[in-house]
Amino acid sequence: MPNRSYLVGLIGSGIGPSLSPALHEREADRQGLRLVYRLIDIDTLGVPPEAVGDLLRAARDLGFDGLNITHPCKQLVIEHLDALAPQAEALGAVNTVVFEDGRAVGHNTDATGFASSFARGLPDAPLERVVQLGAGGAGAAVAHAMLTLGAERVTVVDALPERAAALAGSLNRAFGEGRAAAAPPERRTELLAHADGLVHATPTGMAAHPGMPLPAELLHSGLWVAEVVYRPLETELLRTARAVGCATLDGGGMAAFQAADAFRLFTGREPDAARMLTDLTELAGAVGASN
Amino acid sequence: MPNRSYLVGLIGSGIGPSLSPALHEREADRQGLRLVYRLIDIDTLGVPPEAVGDLLRAARDLGFDGLNITHPCKQLVIEHLDALAPQAEALGAVNTVVFEDGRAVGHNTDATGFASSFARGLPDAPLERVVQLGAGGAGAAVAHAMLTLGAERVTVVDALPERAAALAGSLNRAFGEGRAAAAPPERRTELLAHADGLVHATPTGMAAHPGMPLPAELLHSGLWVAEVVYRPLETELLRTARAVGCATLDGGGMAAFQAADAFRLFTGREPDAARMLTDLTELAGAVGASN
Repeated sequence: MPNRSYLVGLIGSGIGPSLSPALHEREADRQGLRLVYRLIDIDTLGVPPEAVGDLLRAARDLGFDGLNITHPCKQLVIEHLDALAPQAEALGAVNTVVFEDGRAVGHNTDATGFASSFARGLPDAPLERVVQLGAGGAGAAVAHAMLTLGAERVTVVDALPERAAALAGSLNRAFGEGRAAAAPPERRTELLAHADGLVHATPTGMAAHPGMPLPAELLHSGLWVAEVVYRPLETELLRTARAVGCATLDGGGMAAFQAADAFRLFTGREPDAARMLTDLTELAGAVGASN
Repeated sequence: MPNRSYLVGLIGSGIGPSLSPALHEREADRQGLRLVYRLIDIDTLGVPPEAVGDLLRAARDLGFDGLNITHPCKQLVIEHLDALAPQAEALGAVNTVVFEDGRAVGHNTDATGFASSFARGLPDAPLERVVQLGAGGAGAAVAHAMLTLGAERVTVVDALPERAAALAGSLNRAFGEGRAAAAPPERRTELLAHADGLVHATPTGMAAHPGMPLPAELLHSGLWVAEVVYRPLETELLRTARAVGCATLDGGGMAAFQAADAFRLFTGREPDAARMLTDLTELAGAVGASN
């Protein structure tokens, strides 16, 4: 019987339906580890996003080993940490905090999670010209991952031009001038006509925001399409893309592998990431069916 | 695989060596429950006993299902609770808090734990005249238990006469006039000469307070002796009492059964209390050997 036990959780807004507790607890069960994962929802608690610092301190005082952090606290949490891992520093966002030896260290497993998912799901995808929709928090992580995977150029399209420009600027500083560019939505047609692939990183297609993030006629069989949305796993974008002959990657892999990377940070044990993806697919499917 | 998981803990001072995490987590393991038990030590945190209210609130916010409470917070916690179970109300002390439907409800399993241990370990003990040493928090719980078990009269001896008088007064109000009395240490000889049994509820005999709580010559073969101290399980009092022919009960049963009663409150599942006692005996023995 193990002597060690693990206590972790997730701080964020509107996280009630999160699959993270099930993903982490099931993997721990399989490894024979005692692990409890708690949801700490700032909406339920009635506190503002800035309360993340107090919640972090309370969690450490009460014996948590670590925390996942999600919207809208991924940036706000940084000032309350003692150190940042390079990936989190580069992204300016933290989705995983580990308490070790009295210190709180911030990590980001969104980028590594997406990179693992892409390498597994679209291993032979050409990466010369990539168009990405969305320059928010998920977009930053995913663009970093694409450039880390070797994409030659990522063009970021966002309805907010300054947000797209800021992300492109930070990517160019991190990966070298010319690797990233910003573009307004009007240029999507021209960009996609000459692109190898499309990364979708906006909320459109989620259960709460159904629909397509771009006109269907912009998709063509020469594109691969990678999705960040994972609830539902089968978005209208992916369905449409497959219908015109695109290779596709759903958002489940990113969700499962960011959890797997966090599990490794929390426990020091190697997760069975493929099994966690099977769990996620099952759990997301069950939720989709019941919604 | 279970969907539900349980998060509980202990708030108190100097609780580092507590066996509660192991007792609860092992029993949960056997029942196939995911349960993590955390120690929340006010000394380690550098906060005063009055911080128990803040810690309780934080624990509820972060998803704890309940808490054990120990010295010096068993009374202080009461003003922060929404309701008290009758046993806790009668004792004016809480050692277990359960969060249910947004309410914090206080219980006391020290008295029920001792009662179970006594009924199991000394089932045929005569209960006409009982002398109890110690009128502190443990003493209050144990005296309540003895009267609940049917003791005709419990005489409480304490070095602080007002503390003994207060406990005797509260016992008489709860169980009926004449069931309890207070006495100063000088009367021990006379009282024990005519007593059926001795309950020991002071810290003397613990690893940090070695020795005997009374002169050995006051023990005689007509007495049973019940001990509250459980670390070590074999106190000098019990060793001496057995040598003169007394039936004895060590403190392990109270420790194990209070935990079993708390486990039932936390999880709603019936614990295997006898197995928890076996664990406690093993754990306390291992600690004793290593100290």
